[in-house]
Amino acid sequence: MGVLILLKGKNVAEQINDEISEKVEKLKKNGIIPTLVIMWAGEDTDTLYYISSIEKACISTGISLIKRNFHERIDQETFLNEFKAVNENPTINGIIVMRPLPPQINEGTIAEQIKPEKDIDCISPINIAKVFSGTGGGFAPCTAESVMEILKYYNVELKGKDVVVIGRSMVVGRPVAMMLLKQNATVTICHSKTKDLPNVARRADILVAALGKPNFINRNFIKKGAVVIDVGINELDNEIVGDVDFDDAVHMAGMITPVPGGVGLVTTGVLLRNVLKAVNLQKCY
Amino acid sequence: MGVLILLKGKNVAEQINDEISEKVEKLKKNGIIPTLVIMWAGEDTDTLYYISSIEKACISTGISLIKRNFHERIDQETFLNEFKAVNENPTINGIIVMRPLPPQINEGTIAEQIKPEKDIDCISPINIAKVFSGTGGGFAPCTAESVMEILKYYNVELKGKDVVVIGRSMVVGRPVAMMLLKQNATVTICHSKTKDLPNVARRADILVAALGKPNFINRNFIKKGAVVIDVGINELDNEIVGDVDFDDAVHMAGMITPVPGGVGLVTTGVLLRNVLKAVNLQKCY
Repeated sequence: MGVLILLKGKNVAEQINDEISEKVEKLKKNGIIPTLVIMWAGEDTDTLYYISSIEKACISTGISLIKRNFHERIDQETFLNEFKAVNENPTINGIIVMRPLPPQINEGTIAEQIKPEKDIDCISPINIAKVFSGTGGGFAPCTAESVMEILKYYNVELKGKDVVVIGRSMVVGRPVAMMLLKQNATVTICHSKTKDLPNVARRADILVAALGKPNFINRNFIKKGAVVIDVGINELDNEIVGDVDFDDAVHMAGMITPVPGGVGLVTTGVLLRNVLKAVNLQKCY
Repeated sequence: MGVLILLKGKNVAEQINDEISEKVEKLKKNGIIPTLVIMWAGEDTDTLYYISSIEKACISTGISLIKRNFHERIDQETFLNEFKAVNENPTINGIIVMRPLPPQINEGTIAEQIKPEKDIDCISPINIAKVFSGTGGGFAPCTAESVMEILKYYNVELKGKDVVVIGRSMVVGRPVAMMLLKQNATVTICHSKTKDLPNVARRADILVAALGKPNFINRNFIKKGAVVIDVGINELDNEIVGDVDFDDAVHMAGMITPVPGGVGLVTTGVLLRNVLKAVNLQKCY
């Protein structure tokens, strides 16, 4: 095993949170209270866990959080009316509608209706198209952006590098591939139908694992010295593990994110930073 | 040189045009005249050439074409009002606004305003987001779709294949990469900053050249027996040539599109087929 650099999310998150706190203070001096609304229906455990971590971060950074929780059997019209109220309210800067929504509520309708300048987790087609085209100026999905933040914080060069992204979801795989492309990486997108995945993955200078299979990626998928970013958050035997088998991967990786303590730690910071970005965007409207 | 299969666009275009003519006839029996509007400003040579080929295809398939040409110095308000009129007119099924537009007209405004169900060349964020996410149900850029049509017509298997796309434009590279991904190919996107492009390209079972450099891709970029799709249309010494040096590439390629006579021939057919798709979509609104 050579020298291994651990890409801790904590350092990245702290830097982002410090910047947020500073900016929030300035905004408040100007009479602006950055305000985030989280809407959800039901009591999904993962959702509640994520909300509690957002709440802690809001308290520590001074962002105002409004939680709007509804019964899982709420009818679509009522939910959409509640949504419309926050969407139109000029004192609300950012909105997150937690997914999964109950089946009676059409997620597509919300994605189409949300004001792009309040859409801090990138569900609006307007923001999605901006990520795809690389024009910028909108919001990217927070997890995908967290991957980029970690690479940036640790000065990982992207230009001209071979990057392999495993996974093609709209919350990580596809958007992060486009964001890496924008930084001039040569990007390969792999998935469950990829033939000889270890061989393709071993081409990567930078490997992004976002497939959602616990401990799937071992040393056979990793070129000696490669940078490994593990986006997975899986429960296995009452423990949280990534998509990368960390203990095995360290024999080949040059840099690697731990799970927990890697990408996941940065996501909340990115989300709250987007609330401040939303404050600025709304000034233009 | 082994056996070489020439992927002629003519056969693909004929099949598409035959289908269109048949459907147009049926629609007309039901009193529906599929109608396409092309709007443009100025007298760009490439634009006029493309319009003349669309016009010929409209005549041969029975689709009604309305051409709205404006002076290159038309002011934005007048152009947008003209655009709004066709956008709102229920007898217009498909709209193409030819680019480049003169600098005083904001393309982004048109892209945001065009009704997604009339946007047959995919400039609306709604359609772009559908191509990116792979959900389907909208329109894809016609050139990107033409590449897919050629691969389909000649029964080129995509699932699990290594595909390399050279070029990352929003009219070909990015959308075709997503459409190939949807067909379960393993997709690599390359560009001017890719290191050792020949080496990366030689990994490809299927190579899509859409970089816009005449005769750039020679045998050194091609794995023995690979499928080569040449999207380039470049003028060189008064001749139209592709991005692939055809005469050299044939020493390695197993299948290859000619230029002219390849992808370009299929584009107009795809465009007109989209007008019929628009007729169906508008029934749902």
